[in-house]
Amino acid sequence: MAPFVHACPWCYIGKARFEKGLAAFAHRDEIEVVHRSFELDPHRAKSETGPVLEMLASKYGRTLDEARAMEAHVATNAHSEGLEYRTEGRDHGNTFDIHRLLHLAKDRGVQNALLDLAYRANFAEERSVFDDDTLVALAVEAGLDETEVRAVLADPEAYADAVRADEREAAELGANGVPFFVLDRKYGVSGGQPAELFTQALEQAWQGRALQPVGGAATAGTADACDIDGGNC
Amino acid sequence: MAPFVHACPWCYIGKARFEKGLAAFAHRDEIEVVHRSFELDPHRAKSETGPVLEMLASKYGRTLDEARAMEAHVATNAHSEGLEYRTEGRDHGNTFDIHRLLHLAKDRGVQNALLDLAYRANFAEERSVFDDDTLVALAVEAGLDETEVRAVLADPEAYADAVRADEREAAELGANGVPFFVLDRKYGVSGGQPAELFTQALEQAWQGRALQPVGGAATAGTADACDIDGGNC
Repeated sequence: MAPFVHACPWCYIGKARFEKGLAAFAHRDEIEVVHRSFELDPHRAKSETGPVLEMLASKYGRTLDEARAMEAHVATNAHSEGLEYRTEGRDHGNTFDIHRLLHLAKDRGVQNALLDLAYRANFAEERSVFDDDTLVALAVEAGLDETEVRAVLADPEAYADAVRADEREAAELGANGVPFFVLDRKYGVSGGQPAELFTQALEQAWQGRALQPVGGAATAGTADACDIDGGNC
Repeated sequence: MAPFVHACPWCYIGKARFEKGLAAFAHRDEIEVVHRSFELDPHRAKSETGPVLEMLASKYGRTLDEARAMEAHVATNAHSEGLEYRTEGRDHGNTFDIHRLLHLAKDRGVQNALLDLAYRANFAEERSVFDDDTLVALAVEAGLDETEVRAVLADPEAYADAVRADEREAAELGANGVPFFVLDRKYGVSGGQPAELFTQALEQAWQGRALQPVGGAATAGTADACDIDGGNC
């Protein structure tokens, strides 16, 4: 499983829906979930932050009231999943550093914890995730070592390749938006779909785990091979 | 790509055929090949080595002459791929340590080199790959650090989990013999098939790389998602 994530609210909501769908899946304990990087606005400078509503209005050519209505629609969806969502006062900005820290967190086994904390900070608590002190506080709360976190933030190349590799893979897989869920590199689910859809996708992927044979049955004994229980060599 | 490998002669031959098939594949430079562990005889003690011909005769209930005929058949196949193959005087034994070293070599980027050297030593040069000094010499020739190699050999748990994880995965994938080739965890090729079959399998896997959508088109914009070029959030 590799959902591509972002500061996009549908990722925040989609993660909750996916987790509800996963909880209803019989083989949930055998599923490994890895979160991948995806930037919606990679060319924005790190210092260039600002209010979300104004960004939405300017990016999509809407009035502020229309942007507010878009946010209200998102909030309704968030609330229906039991998630807090503040429609005013949030910042937007460049998420590259968050993604780099999520890769460090992945290496240390706390990726999911950091992602949940970052989502909550950004969408429910209106703490800006675009300044280093907040990022450090969240990372330490997730279980990371403060010195290590500061070292990664101070070195712009730390985990930068890992972020870019995820984004290249997303492009190869045809993902041009998030959230985007990839199961076994075989099935794709786009968007913050209902939990039931994720359960169904997991079941479909589970059924489809058998390898497709090329050149005859994909089990040994049919060709020049050494069998584990004797025969052929 | 994840061929499962072993001291099985069909792996030695199959690797050559696969590489010939890969060389004829248009996107060969975009393919990553990883060799995985597979033991045919995991319960044999490390000290318990002996001549291959007698093992074959006793394991499969054949006479020594019949075992010789089996080996001659294998040799013909090896020669047709331009590989040397000595049918007499080879040892068999427990390959666990070789697999552990191949995992170290993978971490150091020289897995393919060590595998080729180990195959040549075992099948063409009749150097026993079941003693530590030969293994160290081969590993150093492949580019590994002697101290590191000796440390791995001295610690029976070093890379042991990696070997077992490969074998569990092979079992999950339904591989009960080797060589066994897995492409994108989607397609399986069993046995030392002709090079053309591998090219065809690679082409089929390449075509099949597109994700199968679940719950509508597997591209964003069709559901609750944030698109990279605007829209929805």
